[in-house]
Amino acid sequence: MISKKMKEHVKGSSMIRAMFEEGKKMIDLYGADDVHDFSLGNPSTPPPAEINGIINGILKDEKPTFVHGYMNNAGYEDVRETIAKSLNSKYGTSYGAANVIMTVGAAGGLNIILKTLLDPDDEVVVFAPFFGEYRAYTSNYDGKLVVVSANAPDFQPNLAEFAGKLTARTKAVIVNSPNNPTGVIYSEETLEALAGMLREAQEKFGTSIYLLADEPYRELVYDGGFVPFIPKHYENTIVGYSFSKSLSLPGERIGYLVVPSEVADFDDVLSGATVANRISGFVNAPSLQQRTVAKCLDMETDVSGYNKNREALYNGLTEAGYECVKPQGAFYLFVKSPIESDVEFCSLAKKYHILIVPGTAFACPGYVRIAYCVAHETIVASLPKFKKLLEEVR
Amino acid sequence: MISKKMKEHVKGSSMIRAMFEEGKKMIDLYGADDVHDFSLGNPSTPPPAEINGIINGILKDEKPTFVHGYMNNAGYEDVRETIAKSLNSKYGTSYGAANVIMTVGAAGGLNIILKTLLDPDDEVVVFAPFFGEYRAYTSNYDGKLVVVSANAPDFQPNLAEFAGKLTARTKAVIVNSPNNPTGVIYSEETLEALAGMLREAQEKFGTSIYLLADEPYRELVYDGGFVPFIPKHYENTIVGYSFSKSLSLPGERIGYLVVPSEVADFDDVLSGATVANRISGFVNAPSLQQRTVAKCLDMETDVSGYNKNREALYNGLTEAGYECVKPQGAFYLFVKSPIESDVEFCSLAKKYHILIVPGTAFACPGYVRIAYCVAHETIVASLPKFKKLLEEVR
Repeated sequence: MISKKMKEHVKGSSMIRAMFEEGKKMIDLYGADDVHDFSLGNPSTPPPAEINGIINGILKDEKPTFVHGYMNNAGYEDVRETIAKSLNSKYGTSYGAANVIMTVGAAGGLNIILKTLLDPDDEVVVFAPFFGEYRAYTSNYDGKLVVVSANAPDFQPNLAEFAGKLTARTKAVIVNSPNNPTGVIYSEETLEALAGMLREAQEKFGTSIYLLADEPYRELVYDGGFVPFIPKHYENTIVGYSFSKSLSLPGERIGYLVVPSEVADFDDVLSGATVANRISGFVNAPSLQQRTVAKCLDMETDVSGYNKNREALYNGLTEAGYECVKPQGAFYLFVKSPIESDVEFCSLAKKYHILIVPGTAFACPGYVRIAYCVAHETIVASLPKFKKLLEEVR
Repeated sequence: MISKKMKEHVKGSSMIRAMFEEGKKMIDLYGADDVHDFSLGNPSTPPPAEINGIINGILKDEKPTFVHGYMNNAGYEDVRETIAKSLNSKYGTSYGAANVIMTVGAAGGLNIILKTLLDPDDEVVVFAPFFGEYRAYTSNYDGKLVVVSANAPDFQPNLAEFAGKLTARTKAVIVNSPNNPTGVIYSEETLEALAGMLREAQEKFGTSIYLLADEPYRELVYDGGFVPFIPKHYENTIVGYSFSKSLSLPGERIGYLVVPSEVADFDDVLSGATVANRISGFVNAPSLQQRTVAKCLDMETDVSGYNKNREALYNGLTEAGYECVKPQGAFYLFVKSPIESDVEFCSLAKKYHILIVPGTAFACPGYVRIAYCVAHETIVASLPKFKKLLEEVR
């Protein structure tokens, strides 16, 4: 009796979330020490220690009907202004409050911008491997997902294939760098080339193609790596940001969209996204968290714990004989499945109480994703088991 | 270049929100004391004084990666269990955690349940006057809104007309009691009769019809009035609740759905709504606020301030010669427009710096809505102006 579309969504529902639920059951059965749950991107590094004091201060100093009340559907004006200024000082841009829309995380942001842009059958191009939710987000607005296949082993976007997939119906392209699930950062050269192809396609078809930069992992970078600011490379870029990973607040659902004044049909896009925020049922990003993150913009994200995990996991698995992509950012390791079927491999891993996600969930079969935003002991304890697992399947 | 559908939404965008923005501009021009903004249901009674201590306590006592982390897309298990128990003690039900889904306010809840239920062209019946957003929420999932006309002067649902509007495509009926914009509580007799008609239609068409009870105003009741608990009257009822008004937390976006085990296709509806919560971009209701409201369930909502406003406004306007429906709940007064066009009347009111919303926004032309969740002084100061306004148009 539920809708046909939702029935399909439930059937094909997130492997990642299914694992997360399974992990909780395993912990009940075997105890937390004997379960190695690498399924979900749920930060293990706590939020900055200052955050409790910041929240307490807001509650103490500001009027409660203001802190917990309605504001413009795009968010508090002063919060948006503060974020714009922080971006300006980091990236040399000249944004104002009008270029920022506060959203319910990056997921909320991507949904409202896709709702704003997509007519039925409009095409959204993504590069495998990609976060599987893009499929649902596009389907929510009856868009058509167009997948560019994965480009192993460096996992930069496959631009040769991309060029052939741009059509008169291409409305948006989603890029996610640092990437979930590979940890790869898209290089400036890649982005310049991609921008050139987009401009060419816009001219050829007489259309506007929006580049949606999904950037929850922007601050999670290792070895002094550099994440290019994509609006610098392509004028029709809209950035979706989230504080879920940088401030370890994924449950709070707080992020923002940057809509630069240069994007095509700026006024329509801005008012469309603001109205979409309201009518989709978000109404506005959670108010207390809006005020909180505005006071955390200059905090450094502490990646030392993730980096320690990254080194231990990458080195341990490589030494054991696995083939891995060394992540430059985010907190995922993308590993070649030692047997053809990644789904079967993840199934076998469960015998060792290891929970990992098949690359199939990211449109990249033959690989598995290990989310290493876990306690360091989980990594250490899992390594001998990963070794045994490899011996078993060889 | 934005989608055709969004273009329409932007064009017909909420009159209420437009007023809210206009109000802020007027305040800049004339000063807050000289603007009487009755446009938005933004609570003027502050949240309970205990709430700061509760939030600080949670931040102090609970692990930050837990308080701000991901949980099941339906919400924290313990929070859902606590809410179920609180409902059970109030209404004699026997709900468990599995009957409660935490949502991003009632707006988020209504959206995920409509996304779960509606195939394109499925019909959703509403009773005028109704919260205009139902139109957008239904359109989001390509449903067809079927409006039963208003039943002045008591504004109970027009059941005679309703019976004729139930078809084989009716998937849901939305009721909102205490009602926005009239403040009327739907009586037990009304609900019993409505339930009978729904059962008859289900049998006749061999379908399931879900009654969606949108209940953000459940706790805002005057003169010891009684709000029937609708699942007691009709087994296929799903309740959408919000803490926006009862705890004065509208900006925090926190509420829940109750999906009783008796509803048709319970398992599908439950998993559908949980998946819809995720893929719509909500992911989950804001985590800190979930934990906060679970500790506030037994607090009495203080309606004394609203009641004082209600009496002053109702008496003042009635004495001045306006025809009003005396509200039994919520914080809106629905007033007959003294001239034929409610839109024109609201326009004239602006000359007196009075912001009120035309009934047309609620599919009930000829009336206007006054949201009296404002400072008492605003009411007192506005009364002579309302009087002059009436004299002007007579």
